[in-house]
Amino acid sequence: MTGLKQKLLQWVDPDLAAIESALLQNLDPHLELVRKTAGHLIFSGGKRLRPLLVVLCARICGHESDFVPKFASTFEFLHTATLLHDDVIDGASMRRGKAVAHSIYGAPVTVLVGDFLLARALHTVAETQNPKIIQVVSQMTEEMSEGEIFQLMKKGDVHITEDEYMDIIRRKTGILIQGACRTGALLAGAAEAMENALTAYGRHLGLVFQIADDLLDYTADTAELGKTVGTDLKEGKLTLPLIYTLGRAEGADRRLIEEIIANETFARSDFKFLLSLLEKYGGLDYAEKKAAGHLAQAKKQLDIFAPSTEREILLTMADYALNRTS
Amino acid sequence: MTGLKQKLLQWVDPDLAAIESALLQNLDPHLELVRKTAGHLIFSGGKRLRPLLVVLCARICGHESDFVPKFASTFEFLHTATLLHDDVIDGASMRRGKAVAHSIYGAPVTVLVGDFLLARALHTVAETQNPKIIQVVSQMTEEMSEGEIFQLMKKGDVHITEDEYMDIIRRKTGILIQGACRTGALLAGAAEAMENALTAYGRHLGLVFQIADDLLDYTADTAELGKTVGTDLKEGKLTLPLIYTLGRAEGADRRLIEEIIANETFARSDFKFLLSLLEKYGGLDYAEKKAAGHLAQAKKQLDIFAPSTEREILLTMADYALNRTS
Repeated sequence: MTGLKQKLLQWVDPDLAAIESALLQNLDPHLELVRKTAGHLIFSGGKRLRPLLVVLCARICGHESDFVPKFASTFEFLHTATLLHDDVIDGASMRRGKAVAHSIYGAPVTVLVGDFLLARALHTVAETQNPKIIQVVSQMTEEMSEGEIFQLMKKGDVHITEDEYMDIIRRKTGILIQGACRTGALLAGAAEAMENALTAYGRHLGLVFQIADDLLDYTADTAELGKTVGTDLKEGKLTLPLIYTLGRAEGADRRLIEEIIANETFARSDFKFLLSLLEKYGGLDYAEKKAAGHLAQAKKQLDIFAPSTEREILLTMADYALNRTS
Repeated sequence: MTGLKQKLLQWVDPDLAAIESALLQNLDPHLELVRKTAGHLIFSGGKRLRPLLVVLCARICGHESDFVPKFASTFEFLHTATLLHDDVIDGASMRRGKAVAHSIYGAPVTVLVGDFLLARALHTVAETQNPKIIQVVSQMTEEMSEGEIFQLMKKGDVHITEDEYMDIIRRKTGILIQGACRTGALLAGAAEAMENALTAYGRHLGLVFQIADDLLDYTADTAELGKTVGTDLKEGKLTLPLIYTLGRAEGADRRLIEEIIANETFARSDFKFLLSLLEKYGGLDYAEKKAAGHLAQAKKQLDIFAPSTEREILLTMADYALNRTS
């Protein structure tokens, strides 16, 4: 475990416990099969990043109540719903070091349990009776599905631009993290300046997280990552390091890259060769710099808050988003 | 066209036009592919039963506004979302006489467009800023997904009971129709007695519709129905006429029924033989009587309303639910 992760876990230990208990209590389906299928992924060692952000953003705005973890848990439900559908759609086999839900419960049940979690989340959010929160969460859900669809449309497309990539990750990842931070502020009834700062913090943090995730798919250790390195590429997902490299590589290098992209069953040696090209053309560096830029932007948003443990945690979370190994 | 249908269409013609225009305006996705995939099913001659019920139930409670068709359209989005997911899950090939969406746009896009429509519906409903409506619709969506899952769990199960069947159709069909009627009353700010009466009307009407649908799968004309007769059975869905018959048939008859159920590629002659058994044991009659009972219950709920065109339409709709050919 890295130092940052250990530091974070010590800080948020009681919050994580409250979130775990809220997740268990609020899943509450009518059918045992739904509990099992949803629980398979929900209770498989997720980071609880999104509900934690709700709790911390509410607290940094001075708000704390027993209901915060409950409403926070809906962000984990939404996140899980999209992962369940994604894994079915991508034909994935592993997630967090475990066999994916649909390999055990079948694709039909998994799709429907994703629907259940989406509805469960929106139903719980409705209980806040806060029109702005309900609006934020429902709009977010809509944009997320379009992000996923746009990603699917761009599958294997070697002409995907950096702007298109940024649009995809903003929708599919950024918006949920941004929405979690904003919801924390809204639950607190925070002043607009605080709400805006936390919304912007979330927007940049989400981009850092996704770019880092996409980097890890090239650079991580498979055992630590919980899924095979190179999975994105196998699924036809072209991410920033590769998009940048494709924009610069010519001749034989470019032809080889395109061949590897087109070949879904590329060999380990091909992947290693591709990695060397990403290094040669600076694709990995470029993505890391991009992420670092958003990291700085995320942290800057917190300037308006007085020093506090919550501010420390949110700053550390941003650092952790980029400097993690899984 | 039956007389009832013609009568209904004359009455609701302006409402249908307003609903069509609201559907077009409110679909409003960012991506053209989403518009196409969703539009393929949304604009394929659906009956618009659910949005019509919202409009009529609001009006019978004295409410009319430009926003009603907009909020009403969300019920068609929700309905379409479940149909898109169902058709993927069931591996269906035809719906309303057209090739299903996933056979054209692929299962991954179709699943995600279903998610989009679900989110779009809840997002539009959030705009009502009416906590009760938001609560009703989000809870409804949750129950619908569990209904679909329960149906999947009971696939091909010859021991399914009538109670289990009723639970499935209540969740997967009844709740949405009931929710549409209740939402109409809520939009109107109707008195509790009216809200309750319309909710109960919707509950019974939903059951009539589904039992009639299940009967049509045995008795309809394929060309008129827009999909092949016997599709439910091929998909392992055991419905009331068959459940009733299974409870009574013994010996060779029962063995033959079980064989046909187990054989997903049963021949036309098998299906005809099965039909003769449903007649012999009274399964078709029983289901029709059940539906007629709920039809009477649905109509009775409207007693508290003074005579009006809306009341006439709602009464005729109930009759049409049972006496239709597609």
